[in-house]
Amino acid sequence: MNDELFINTVQKYPAVWTHPTNKEISGSCRLLNFFKEMFKNIFLNRLRTRTFDLISYNSRNVVTGIENIHNNDIGKEVEFKGWVKSVRKHKENIFVDLSYGIVKDKVQILIPLKLNPQVSPGTSIAVKGRLHLSPRGQIELLAERIKVFGKCSMEEGYPFAPRKTYAPEYVRQYLHLRPRYNKFSSLLKVRSAAELVIHEYFNSEGYISVHTPILTSNDCEGAGEIFKVIPDNEALLTDMVREKVPLHEAFFNTKVFLSVSGQLHLEAAAHSLHKVYTFGPTFRAENSKTRLHLSEFYMVESEIAFLEKLEELIQIIEELIKSVTKSLLNRCEDDIQLFCTENKISFTWLDKNFPILTYSEAIGILKSNRENFKTDIDYNKGFSKEHEIFLVNYCGGSPTFIINWPKVMKPFYMKECEDEDTEVAALDLLAPGVGEIVGGSLRENNYIKLKNRLPKLSEQLEWYLDLRKYGGVPTGGFGLGFERYLLFLLGINNIKDTIPFPRWPHNCSL
Amino acid sequence: MNDELFINTVQKYPAVWTHPTNKEISGSCRLLNFFKEMFKNIFLNRLRTRTFDLISYNSRNVVTGIENIHNNDIGKEVEFKGWVKSVRKHKENIFVDLSYGIVKDKVQILIPLKLNPQVSPGTSIAVKGRLHLSPRGQIELLAERIKVFGKCSMEEGYPFAPRKTYAPEYVRQYLHLRPRYNKFSSLLKVRSAAELVIHEYFNSEGYISVHTPILTSNDCEGAGEIFKVIPDNEALLTDMVREKVPLHEAFFNTKVFLSVSGQLHLEAAAHSLHKVYTFGPTFRAENSKTRLHLSEFYMVESEIAFLEKLEELIQIIEELIKSVTKSLLNRCEDDIQLFCTENKISFTWLDKNFPILTYSEAIGILKSNRENFKTDIDYNKGFSKEHEIFLVNYCGGSPTFIINWPKVMKPFYMKECEDEDTEVAALDLLAPGVGEIVGGSLRENNYIKLKNRLPKLSEQLEWYLDLRKYGGVPTGGFGLGFERYLLFLLGINNIKDTIPFPRWPHNCSL
Repeated sequence: MNDELFINTVQKYPAVWTHPTNKEISGSCRLLNFFKEMFKNIFLNRLRTRTFDLISYNSRNVVTGIENIHNNDIGKEVEFKGWVKSVRKHKENIFVDLSYGIVKDKVQILIPLKLNPQVSPGTSIAVKGRLHLSPRGQIELLAERIKVFGKCSMEEGYPFAPRKTYAPEYVRQYLHLRPRYNKFSSLLKVRSAAELVIHEYFNSEGYISVHTPILTSNDCEGAGEIFKVIPDNEALLTDMVREKVPLHEAFFNTKVFLSVSGQLHLEAAAHSLHKVYTFGPTFRAENSKTRLHLSEFYMVESEIAFLEKLEELIQIIEELIKSVTKSLLNRCEDDIQLFCTENKISFTWLDKNFPILTYSEAIGILKSNRENFKTDIDYNKGFSKEHEIFLVNYCGGSPTFIINWPKVMKPFYMKECEDEDTEVAALDLLAPGVGEIVGGSLRENNYIKLKNRLPKLSEQLEWYLDLRKYGGVPTGGFGLGFERYLLFLLGINNIKDTIPFPRWPHNCSL
Repeated sequence: MNDELFINTVQKYPAVWTHPTNKEISGSCRLLNFFKEMFKNIFLNRLRTRTFDLISYNSRNVVTGIENIHNNDIGKEVEFKGWVKSVRKHKENIFVDLSYGIVKDKVQILIPLKLNPQVSPGTSIAVKGRLHLSPRGQIELLAERIKVFGKCSMEEGYPFAPRKTYAPEYVRQYLHLRPRYNKFSSLLKVRSAAELVIHEYFNSEGYISVHTPILTSNDCEGAGEIFKVIPDNEALLTDMVREKVPLHEAFFNTKVFLSVSGQLHLEAAAHSLHKVYTFGPTFRAENSKTRLHLSEFYMVESEIAFLEKLEELIQIIEELIKSVTKSLLNRCEDDIQLFCTENKISFTWLDKNFPILTYSEAIGILKSNRENFKTDIDYNKGFSKEHEIFLVNYCGGSPTFIINWPKVMKPFYMKECEDEDTEVAALDLLAPGVGEIVGGSLRENNYIKLKNRLPKLSEQLEWYLDLRKYGGVPTGGFGLGFERYLLFLLGINNIKDTIPFPRWPHNCSL
C-alpha cells in the first residue's frame, strides 16, 4: 500500500428531510399557524434524533489512546494518529517513534517495508494495526495500514533534525515551528501547568480572580514607558470624534494605554472581596534588549485587605512560590527534569526560609564587596543586575527579600515606614541567576497622606482616593513576573524562551 | 471606648545587629577574605533565625475565621475584620452584619451602646469579643473592643445604601465602588469560579494552555476593526527608528495591533501539542454601543489536531459548556441563585442535546416566519440579533448550533464542505437571549487550497502556510465569548455588568 496523501474535505451534513417550513401552505391564517406548529414539532423531533447520533459518536478515544496502553491491550486492533519523531530502518521493517507532541507519550510502531512507508521525521500519520509485545518486552504497534496526513522534509526547509540539539537562538528563529521542538514543547507544558497550579493555589486560599483591564486611561506608575492604543481606522475616528477631543483620542474620548500593572484596579476589588489576584498580560514600551526583558509579559498580581505588616506579605509570597513550585515538581517531573539536568538547577531552597535584608543592609554588603562589580553602588539608584545576583549568592543562593526601600525610588502609593519616613514598606524578592522576580508593598491607606503624595495626574486618580474615603482599610500586595519565575524555576538563560510568542524591541513577528 | 481612627504606619523591621561587613577589616587580602567569610556566616545565621520568627507569625487565621465558625467555638475570644453591611439599633445594643465581601460569610455582631460605636454601613472595622449563642440560636459575636479603619457615609458621597436595590446603569457609574455592591460582588465570584472551572476542565481533558500574543503583526480576520499600538514616548521612537521604517512603526519595526483572535497562533501550537486552548483578553475597535458589545472582552479559544469532522467539534463544545456550567452550579449555588430568581433563568437545557440546523435550514425557518422581524432576511448577510434569538426559541430554547455557512461570509482559513464548495464547515452556537456565543470551524489544511485563498497579506502569513507544509494535519477549533457565556448563564441583560472594568466606545474610565 502506498502512503495516501489526503486532501481532507468535509462531509456536508446530509439533509435527510425536506424542510416543512419551505413548503407553501395555503388557507386561513389560523390554519397556517396550526400547520406551522405541527410541522415545527415534527422538525424538532427529527433534530433531536439527529443530535443524539452525533453525541454517541466519539473518535477522540482513538487519538488519545497512546498514553493509556496496557499489557492487556495486546492483540487489540487500534489506530494512532501523531507525528513521526524518529525513524530507524531494519532489514524487513522500519521502526517509528510516534508522538502527538507529548514527549513521554510516544509509542513505537513497526512498519513492514512492503507497506512502502514514506515517513520522514515530522510527518503526520494515522496508523492502523495490532498491539503486540516486542522481543524486548515493549508494547508496540504492528502497522497494517498507514495514512499520511502531511509530509515533512528538511530538504523543503523544515529546520529541525530528529534527536538533534539546537541553540535556543536558532530555534527562536522559527517561532511557528518551535512548539514542535522537544525541549520547547516541554517548556509549554510546564508553563501551562504553572498557570493552572497558580489559579488552584489562590482559589484554595480563598482569593477571587479579578480581570483587571488591559486598556486603561490611568498610567499607574507614571514611568512613561507605556504603549498608547488607537483604532487603525481613521474614518472611524473622524466619525466618532467629539468637540474639544483630539482626533486620536476619539474612540474612547480619552487617551488610552496598555496596562503596566493591574494593582490600582485590584485594590478597588480588594476593598470588597478581601483577597484578590489577577493573572494576565502586562506591557512595557522600554528599549531594553536584555535576556530578562520582554515588551509583553505575564504578571501574577495580588492585593490583600486588612494587611498591616510587611512580614505578612513576605509570608504570603514565600508560601505562594514554594507551594506552586512543589505542585509543579509533582505534576511535571519529566518535563522539569529535562531542564534540571542540563541547567544544573537544584531545589534545596524549597526547604529553607528565604533570607531578608533591609535595603540599607544590602547596600552595606555591596559596598564591602565593591571590588566584585563593574557598576557603581549608589544608595539612591538601587541595584544593577550584578548587584542583585551577588546579594542572592551572598545570602546562600535562596531567593532573598530586600525590604524597606528609599521612598524617592518608589511610586506614590507605597506606605511610609513607621519610624523612618524616608523609607517605604516595600519589598523586592531576588531569585538566583535572575534577580527581581517579585515587587510589593503596603499601600498608603491614609486619605490625607495619599492625597498629598499624588502626582499631577491627581484628577484622574480621584477614584483611587475614594477607596480610602469610604471604608478604607490597610492593604498590601505584590506582583510576580511569571516568565522570570519560569527562568528561575528551570534555569533557562533567556526570557524569550519561556513564552510562546515573545515580543521585544524591533521584534514582533507572527 | 471610642472608635479609634487608625493612621496605619509600618513598623520598620528592627535591625538588631551591627552589620559586620560594614566594619573596616585590615590586613592581607587573604586574611580579609577569611574574616569576610566568617562574618558572613555569622550574619547569615542571624538572618535565618530572624526569618524563622516571621514564618511562625500568622495573623491571617484571624481574618479568614468568619466562614469557619462552629458551635463548639462558643465562648472563644476572636477578632473579626470586615465591612459593616447593615446596622440595626436596639435599646442597649446595636446589631451589625459584618462581612468581608462574601455575602454568605457574614456574621452578626452585637455591640453594647456603651462602646459608642460609630459604624454606618460601609465602615471597615476590627472587632474583638467573645462568640455566644443568640436567643434565636445563631452564633454571634459580643463585641468588647472596636477599631474603625475607615468611616463611610452617604452624606460624603458613598453611593450605595444598605439592602437597597439599584439599577445596573446606576451602579455602573461607580466602577471603583461597584465590587462593594452585593449583587456585583456575587458576579465577580461567579466569574472567578468560571475561569478556574474552565482551566480545570481543559486540563482534565488533556489540553495545554498556550498564551497567544496580545501584540501581533497579523490582522487575522482582516476585518479592519483593530487597534494599533504605538509607544507614547516620541523621543523613544526617534531613537529606535531604522531606515525605510515609518516613525510610528519604529518600536517593533513593523505595524503592531491588539489581537482580535489567538486562533492562528493556537494552530501553530496544536501542530505539536495536539489539543490546546487559550483564555485571555481580545479587542475590537468597533463603534457598537449595544448591550452585547465590549471593546475589550475575554475569549476561550481552542484548537484540536486530527479533527476531521464538524460533528466532533460540536460534541467538544457542547461537552465544555455543559460540564463547566454543572461545575459552576455546584460551586457557586448561592451566588448564581441570586441571579436565577430575579432573571427567571432555568437550566433545563443541561439535560438536552443542543439542536443543530444548517445555515440554509435556518434561513428557511426565518423566511417562513418573516412577519416576526423588523430586519431583512438575506442569505448573504447572515442573521441579525432578532433572527438569532428567534431561531433559539424556535428550536425549544436550548443553545442551538448553526452549521455549514456560505463561504463568502467567512474568513479564508475555513475548510470547504465536501459536496458543496460554496459552503464552509463552520458553526455558530446561539444561546437564548444572547445569540452567538461560540464560533468555530474546521481549518483548511490543504497547502495549495489555502494558498489560493489567502488574502493580499499572504507574505505576512507565510508562517501559517508552513504549518501545512511540514507535517500538516486536519484541525478544527472554536472561540467562546466568556462574557456572553456569563450573560447567558446568569440571564444578565447588559454585557457591561459581567466584567469588572468594562470598556466600550467613548468609555474607558479608570
